[in-house]
Amino acid sequence: MIYTRTIPIEFCHCDPAGIVFYPRYAEMVNHMVENYFIDVLGYSFAEMMAAGQGMPTARLEVDFRKPSRLGDRLNWTLAVEHLGRSSARFLVRAEDRIEARSTVVWMERDFTPSPWPEAFRAKLEAYHA
Amino acid sequence: MIYTRTIPIEFCHCDPAGIVFYPRYAEMVNHMVENYFIDVLGYSFAEMMAAGQGMPTARLEVDFRKPSRLGDRLNWTLAVEHLGRSSARFLVRAEDRIEARSTVVWMERDFTPSPWPEAFRAKLEAYHA
Amino acid sequence: MIYTRTIPIEFCHCDPAGIVFYPRYAEMVNHMVENYFIDVLGYSFAEMMAAGQGMPTARLEVDFRKPSRLGDRLNWTLAVEHLGRSSARFLVRAEDRIEARSTVVWMERDFTPSPWPEAFRAKLEAYHA
Amino acid sequence: MIYTRTIPIEFCHCDPAGIVFYPRYAEMVNHMVENYFIDVLGYSFAEMMAAGQGMPTARLEVDFRKPSRLGDRLNWTLAVEHLGRSSARFLVRAEDRIEARSTVVWMERDFTPSPWPEAFRAKLEAYHA
Repeated sequence: MIYTRTIPIEFCHCDPAGIVFYPRYAEMVNHMVENYFIDVLGYSFAEMMAAGQGMPTARLEVDFRKPSRLGDRLNWTLAVEHLGRSSARFLVRAEDRIEARSTVVWMERDFTPSPWPEAFRAKLEAYHA
Repeated sequence: MIYTRTIPIEFCHCDPAGIVFYPRYAEMVNHMVENYFIDVLGYSFAEMMAAGQGMPTARLEVDFRKPSRLGDRLNWTLAVEHLGRSSARFLVRAEDRIEARSTVVWMERDFTPSPWPEAFRAKLEAYHA
Repeated sequence: MIYTRTIPIEFCHCDPAGIVFYPRYAEMVNHMVENYFIDVLGYSFAEMMAAGQGMPTARLEVDFRKPSRLGDRLNWTLAVEHLGRSSARFLVRAEDRIEARSTVVWMERDFTPSPWPEAFRAKLEAYHA
Repeated sequence: MIYTRTIPIEFCHCDPAGIVFYPRYAEMVNHMVENYFIDVLGYSFAEMMAAGQGMPTARLEVDFRKPSRLGDRLNWTLAVEHLGRSSARFLVRAEDRIEARSTVVWMERDFTPSPWPEAFRAKLEAYHA
């Protein structure tokens, strides 16, 4: 399965060249992961923090293929490219514009890497491409 | 040679976990490249735009090694890791916290990839590690 | 009439105190005005710029009444509190959290204040509270 | 006395019209207040949070007088326009570009408004214009 969302490109995303300023794409990647957790795993970042858990990003790779402009409505997709014991690499794409890989680590007790909870693992597997 | 700047971690950079939100690091990487151009190449992004030139980022890779906290003062370095005919890959680091590689493409006339101007190439070479 | 939108509070909006960092509210106010133009006036900021028009914000007043937290879903409203010949003051609110007033100026030719186009004025009047 | 800082306008601050996007000014106002606390009161926001204190912004008013462009170096000033028992209104200006008033509330124990600590009050008084 593939998780999808549409993000309209608004004034706040664009730079003086009239295209998306690339750090704003990093925010969109985070938005995709955050909402995938809410919509698919049924677990919000708010719940995660309240439970003393965390999921820091360990590595981010982004290829910027074509510029996006004010008014574009980008169709984004998220899939799990690699699923480790306590980590995952998400492949997050927006059409022919950008392709991002975000590696996260699941952390519990004292903020140490911990195995994915079983309920999460099953759902992450379902989106494992 | 290595280009250096210090960036204090301020309230606006930090997330609810009290550490730098990673898209803010992408802004810091851009800040490093932008100021390297001003300080070393003597050419600002404002001049670049006025001249109809551009320097889009084609690829960004970031390893987040340790979190940074509000009040930290990070010592950043920038070197040229690879210098192509019309591209460059900058290695941008902040101590033991993050290591980023940003690949940019120099563009002129009609926004097509163009060879680096000679004056720029000489200076980029000097920072080629 | 009143224009409404819901904005979920995400990780990117929140500060180390776990509440919305107030400059992010300013972005939300801009988001409300930008989407009101698209949805109600049928005119996007992209079209506005392509036509050499602009609508700078001349004044912004915000009262922050209660903090908003990660995971909140804020119901925002926008109404036209004052409609001038070439300006408008929008009243933009999110429940009991914030109340903002944003005064914009319509600009055409050479970026000088100009009377609202008639089609816009009629629609702005309809949202004049 | 007046507190001063220079802020260079960089790529990340500017919108597709090539001028500072106004929510970025709100970040600059926060930057001014945050650094005034560090430089004048000798107290960082990090220390404030560690001590369970806080200083939320209750009201922000900004007049945007003239646009600022990429490459501008803005000279900012901060003065205390009004000093209350547990609140203060800062007047924060950047040349002929913007004039902002930010009202903050000092909070301690259980995050309730509390009188300014004496040492702070004396320093705030010194910047009371």
